[in-house]
Amino acid sequence: MQHVYVENLRDHVGSVVTLKGWLYNRRSKGKIHFLQLRDGTGIVQVVMVAGQVPQDQFEAASSLGQESSIIVRGLVKKDARAQGGYEIDGQDLVIVSPAQDYPIQKKEHGPDFLLDHRHLWLRSRKQVALMRVRSAVIFALRSFFDRRGFVNMDAPIFTPNACEGTSTLFAVDYFEETAYLTQSGQLYGEAGAMALGKIYTFGPTFRAEKSKTRRHLTEFWMLEPEVAYADLNDIMRLAEDMLSEVVAEVLARRAIELEILERDTTSLKRVQAPFPRVTYDEAAKILAEEGTGFVYGNDLGAPDETAISKRFDRPVMVTHWPADIKAFYMKRDPADPTKVLGCDVIAPDGYGEIIGGSQREDDLSLLEQRIAHEKLPKEAFEWYLDLRRYGSVPHAGFGLGLERLVAWISGTEHVRECIPFPRTIYRMRP
Amino acid sequence: MQHVYVENLRDHVGSVVTLKGWLYNRRSKGKIHFLQLRDGTGIVQVVMVAGQVPQDQFEAASSLGQESSIIVRGLVKKDARAQGGYEIDGQDLVIVSPAQDYPIQKKEHGPDFLLDHRHLWLRSRKQVALMRVRSAVIFALRSFFDRRGFVNMDAPIFTPNACEGTSTLFAVDYFEETAYLTQSGQLYGEAGAMALGKIYTFGPTFRAEKSKTRRHLTEFWMLEPEVAYADLNDIMRLAEDMLSEVVAEVLARRAIELEILERDTTSLKRVQAPFPRVTYDEAAKILAEEGTGFVYGNDLGAPDETAISKRFDRPVMVTHWPADIKAFYMKRDPADPTKVLGCDVIAPDGYGEIIGGSQREDDLSLLEQRIAHEKLPKEAFEWYLDLRRYGSVPHAGFGLGLERLVAWISGTEHVRECIPFPRTIYRMRP
Repeated sequence: MQHVYVENLRDHVGSVVTLKGWLYNRRSKGKIHFLQLRDGTGIVQVVMVAGQVPQDQFEAASSLGQESSIIVRGLVKKDARAQGGYEIDGQDLVIVSPAQDYPIQKKEHGPDFLLDHRHLWLRSRKQVALMRVRSAVIFALRSFFDRRGFVNMDAPIFTPNACEGTSTLFAVDYFEETAYLTQSGQLYGEAGAMALGKIYTFGPTFRAEKSKTRRHLTEFWMLEPEVAYADLNDIMRLAEDMLSEVVAEVLARRAIELEILERDTTSLKRVQAPFPRVTYDEAAKILAEEGTGFVYGNDLGAPDETAISKRFDRPVMVTHWPADIKAFYMKRDPADPTKVLGCDVIAPDGYGEIIGGSQREDDLSLLEQRIAHEKLPKEAFEWYLDLRRYGSVPHAGFGLGLERLVAWISGTEHVRECIPFPRTIYRMRP
Repeated sequence: MQHVYVENLRDHVGSVVTLKGWLYNRRSKGKIHFLQLRDGTGIVQVVMVAGQVPQDQFEAASSLGQESSIIVRGLVKKDARAQGGYEIDGQDLVIVSPAQDYPIQKKEHGPDFLLDHRHLWLRSRKQVALMRVRSAVIFALRSFFDRRGFVNMDAPIFTPNACEGTSTLFAVDYFEETAYLTQSGQLYGEAGAMALGKIYTFGPTFRAEKSKTRRHLTEFWMLEPEVAYADLNDIMRLAEDMLSEVVAEVLARRAIELEILERDTTSLKRVQAPFPRVTYDEAAKILAEEGTGFVYGNDLGAPDETAISKRFDRPVMVTHWPADIKAFYMKRDPADPTKVLGCDVIAPDGYGEIIGGSQREDDLSLLEQRIAHEKLPKEAFEWYLDLRRYGSVPHAGFGLGLERLVAWISGTEHVRECIPFPRTIYRMRP
């Protein structure tokens, strides 16, 4: 008997199949059991009618607890009323391992309880949908860059020095030395772009941030493309093409999951390049009108980002930031050296900044000045300066926070649900 | 003028294009310069003839140093004698940034010098080819699992406890606690499989090993699929299908790179499922015949792996290992409880073990006994035991070391060249 996954039932209507999974829910009405079977790809209702299945099986099903593992044989029927569109006429039930007193009940649990039971919470319908969306986002991102000839080039996790300051670094005893966990693969990505033309890094990054907001994790995944012979405009086009294609692919592949997550997809369908562009100065004017209390010269706070995003119907790109609040490696705007050729992409609907990028300073002496001005230890950057000594070229790239992107696409308030096992200041378990 | 990458020249024969890259090599013969231009996707020869290009450009090219960044306009010609098959009739040369005294010369450099200059060494023809092979391997692996409906589910890097002992762990100050960097995502992958059916983790893992062999890195990438309702045979088939499809895809996509690496591809073309299978006991008999000095009951050493691999024309799977030398979570063989249902895959040509997998112990009390026997702290595994308390099912998975796979496919002796920025006991720079 063929083992079929719930997501593939559409190809087996009218056939008898075997499903292997877990009992998600059970209702019994006299001589009928309605068993909700989940197998990780979806949930389907199995109807067991007394007399049509062996009597001992029918009785065993009466007391079956949530998350018991079960194997069901039955006939696949189309049923427009059923979520997912299919139903199973049960013919045979094998209980692989009965479960009782499953900790996560239908009642509302607090976030700490759920996070303590993350290994089980992941089985719930919404969390499964979120993980399936996350996986589709990752694959769509990688496919996008593969199609465009980018080489995936992983940055190291152990680094001897920090890219953007040392206050939020995790230190590791590395034999006789101290290593730090990477906060960004960018500097290594720049070396990669000079070697391979256009590359992307995509791996975990770390920030020892004490922030307890819904947007912060100590460990999160970051995608960072870097392109040789590219300027700010090139990578802005790359970013909007990437977001447009990825959102379209996820809408197509994960329609059922977005429905489960009750995501209103109309705003996602509008995510098509080109995106609106505003300079930092224009953004400041908008914020003055909106009265968010924004002070010119500062970074945008979450309320500022939300206020700006409300003015537009798709992600918005804020460009030409004050140099003083941006990283040392960003290239100055030749037309206004107080600004850098940087760009943040702000997601719609208050999901905040999901991308930060820039053209990089490609002039050796200007870069040395910036490193001196920021009081960074120059010797640690000698290898990075080599990239300007030997064949410097204009280049640009950006960083995309995966979990923030998933939060926006899936319509999830907390990034902690957008990663399988979230790590925050108070949590590294399970 | 259209910017074209070297790898796409085949689509532009007879057209004038713009190439942007770096000078890889230069020969001059009277009134002709032969410039090797590299752009990360390949290398092409640009022929500059005096009189056919502006005189100042011709003269500037005479003293151009290696790794100067250059933009060339010229006509694309097919040329069977040229590596790659194309040549450029140069019409115009722009020097973006001249370089002199590039540290890596054509002479032989020692490995320490090259590793100290890894950010530049990556530009060399062989290293570019290796990185392009690595990237193609990664994408082929991810595509394989995506096609088969697996969900990519990242395991956390920060973990509170060790999967396989604590002696090779890196410790991190995690606010008020100590976290350890993951050695394997498997236990989390098992939670994922129970939630999502079939998953894979794919991320960096860490071993504080003092080994200084050519096979060891402190930081390396590992792919770990885990499948609910699967037994040892299922994941062995999965592993051989995966290797067969990935090798075939890399042979197709990276033929030029494998040629640059001088990889004899005949043995790669034989990598087709099914693979030969031998039990540990059968392997021991082979080793007795070969006289490697192998002692029954031990793990296989590198010479043992090589001796076994020589008996077969493709990767070989060694199964049914002594329980005493394998991890606590492996399921005992019902037919012989001194053995576990484990499987290692040994690559051909002496590249050693690239995959280790097993069916997992799904019985709660047997697993508790194993944890007690190994003197592991039970409370740290309570969440993992929950996977057996609530709907335990037969399940299996394996771990694949990415850099070892790349070393084998590319025919590279040292794994340190198979990752962009290798980390070893003595090295975390650049």
